[in-house]
Amino acid sequence: MTRDDALALDAADPLARFRAAFDLPKGIIYLDGNSLGPPPRATVARLAGVVSEEWGQGLIRSWNTAGWIDAPTRVGGKIARLIGAKASEVVVADSTTVNLFKLTAGALSLQPGRRTILSETGNFPTDLYALQGLAALLPDRARLKSVAPEALIDAIDDDTAVVVLTQVHYKSALRRDMAAVTAAAHAKGALMLWDLSHSAGAIAVDLNGADADLAVGCGYKYLNGGPGAPAYVFVAERHQGEIRSPLTGWMGHAEPFAFEDGYRPAHDIRGQLTGTPSVLGLAALEAGIDLQLEADPAAIEAKGLALADLFIAEVEARADDPDLALASPRDPAQRGLHVAFAHPQGYALVQALIARGIIGDFRSPDIARYGFSPLYLGYAQVWDAAAAFAEVLATRAWDRPEFHARAAVT
Amino acid sequence: MTRDDALALDAADPLARFRAAFDLPKGIIYLDGNSLGPPPRATVARLAGVVSEEWGQGLIRSWNTAGWIDAPTRVGGKIARLIGAKASEVVVADSTTVNLFKLTAGALSLQPGRRTILSETGNFPTDLYALQGLAALLPDRARLKSVAPEALIDAIDDDTAVVVLTQVHYKSALRRDMAAVTAAAHAKGALMLWDLSHSAGAIAVDLNGADADLAVGCGYKYLNGGPGAPAYVFVAERHQGEIRSPLTGWMGHAEPFAFEDGYRPAHDIRGQLTGTPSVLGLAALEAGIDLQLEADPAAIEAKGLALADLFIAEVEARADDPDLALASPRDPAQRGLHVAFAHPQGYALVQALIARGIIGDFRSPDIARYGFSPLYLGYAQVWDAAAAFAEVLATRAWDRPEFHARAAVT
Repeated sequence: MTRDDALALDAADPLARFRAAFDLPKGIIYLDGNSLGPPPRATVARLAGVVSEEWGQGLIRSWNTAGWIDAPTRVGGKIARLIGAKASEVVVADSTTVNLFKLTAGALSLQPGRRTILSETGNFPTDLYALQGLAALLPDRARLKSVAPEALIDAIDDDTAVVVLTQVHYKSALRRDMAAVTAAAHAKGALMLWDLSHSAGAIAVDLNGADADLAVGCGYKYLNGGPGAPAYVFVAERHQGEIRSPLTGWMGHAEPFAFEDGYRPAHDIRGQLTGTPSVLGLAALEAGIDLQLEADPAAIEAKGLALADLFIAEVEARADDPDLALASPRDPAQRGLHVAFAHPQGYALVQALIARGIIGDFRSPDIARYGFSPLYLGYAQVWDAAAAFAEVLATRAWDRPEFHARAAVT
Repeated sequence: MTRDDALALDAADPLARFRAAFDLPKGIIYLDGNSLGPPPRATVARLAGVVSEEWGQGLIRSWNTAGWIDAPTRVGGKIARLIGAKASEVVVADSTTVNLFKLTAGALSLQPGRRTILSETGNFPTDLYALQGLAALLPDRARLKSVAPEALIDAIDDDTAVVVLTQVHYKSALRRDMAAVTAAAHAKGALMLWDLSHSAGAIAVDLNGADADLAVGCGYKYLNGGPGAPAYVFVAERHQGEIRSPLTGWMGHAEPFAFEDGYRPAHDIRGQLTGTPSVLGLAALEAGIDLQLEADPAAIEAKGLALADLFIAEVEARADDPDLALASPRDPAQRGLHVAFAHPQGYALVQALIARGIIGDFRSPDIARYGFSPLYLGYAQVWDAAAAFAEVLATRAWDRPEFHARAAVT
């Protein structure tokens, strides 16, 4: 593909109008929206309004008058439209980590007699850590079995209470077949808990179409909800009456402002709430999701995969480095919207590209990772990024001391 | 006291300069900073910078370049100065509710063989709910015993793993003697976990002076950290090597960016971290605390108690309603910075005062609650509020239908 071909694709891009909804820095090609999405312009104004007007002028009254108290369910209901759920099945709460603990414990409560929590090695670390923490707390009731990804389906057995899996792998971008894995879990009587952190807002997700039981996800990646945005929880309607969260707090009480000594859970999705919700975080997240909801999900997925395909093709056509290897599925149907290349100098390679304004990230031990969020990226930008990537490899531009110095966050 | 006397106190107020640090609405006397503090002016600018510059221009790089990754320990270290702790003993994380669960489970891990979690009836509901959730999850290892406040000390026994108590009661403002209760717990081999939500930033708190073991607290009351601000955790240095949080996530790992499958806890205060921290929430909280740290804590406590005393005295001198009863300790040494009056029409009374621009809140079943945050309130304002309170009672101005309609949040 020539650069003019890429420009022609940009001119015909049905999502082109969304680029103006962001104010990305000049001279930057931002290929890390899979880790932290940038702020939509509307978010800046929305947050200023929340701080100055709702908080500053409305003060405590804004819990009622500005709808703060309903924000977790209101924003959850909007996220539901992105993930194939009913509005009443999703609520914004806590962090992905805390929600994994909460829902996995909830799954155990629904599965008396079953002890195994099944996941895969190499899953996003915090997913495994949350499950390890729960299993360590409940040594008589739970054990975590983490198996190699290819062994997962066969490892589901009659003791499996819940299978906990990420739909799109954070490193390789491998996309799981949500319906098939869920069906395999159900065939053995296990529940299915999906982590949507790298898929929601990127690829089409259909939780109810796949008959999923539970899900969690992150607000700050493709949803552009802001650094450390609150996360969300999905509980299929059929489980809401029975599932019990161990993290019981006043916002999950049937009547929070009755101020009773005894906990009585809300028997709807609010039963997954814990403490006072982060109003600032919810406001930024809502602005990101409102923008996302204006776009056609099929167009988002198609463009994101096309951008990723373009990047792979142009890098591989130009790069003549035998140490470089694609670490993502080549078939776009098996991929999310990011791409991983393995290289022994992956860390320095990523830094050298950042120095040229092309921002991706490194994932231990050797992965250069680039994400293709379709709302603010164009084909010509991706073409330029691939050309720069190949040039940095060809000229060994990564081979400078400053590109080897490890920062706290990689 | 005459209004001129109150004005004279304002003129001599050593904290008067802090009033200009806030931009409170005209015509409002804000007596609910004990529930939600208002935004300092600096917070508005700080958040705009975080959104537009750090997030918008710095993007993912800001985790390193803007110090986002260190914010939980940096802001925790600042809170430490308000609560008599070392900087290395406090970290900002999650919500108060989640932190109560986390630290109480941690306390059980430090106390093998002891099963009782001891608290008091009428404690802030989410505190009891968090403990109930933990006890329900661990039926063989934990039980919650909630006793009447006056029976608490005698209820500490050889099975008590941890005593969980709020230093200043959310409703009555009753202040506990932190050193005495902690010593009573220690005398029986129990650990002491304090909830500082209604005391930090208001009264002088000295956790290490009292030899406290653990504490949690809220960021959005006297610390003015914003609605749903992240909460904080204190773990005394002597416990940090041994205590285990059950909520294990990547930010609590010894090397979060090693992306290992197995959890290895940080053996310092970071071991209490879970998921990705709320950067927007931390920024607002830090701005609130930075302002608080400019003021003398002894002056804050003295002025807050004086304002509360003035309110009590002026209300009682003017109100001729036999149904009105002070529901807070009369002795300021036994009180935090808010005041509770019980009245059968408490809800409508509070609404009628809000309609006149005097904002307090109602707490079930009959409490009108008013807080006296010293940084932005003056003596004349409190004098005016007391006069209005008495007038509303005398004229039965609360007796209108609109003041009886219950909002979602009271």
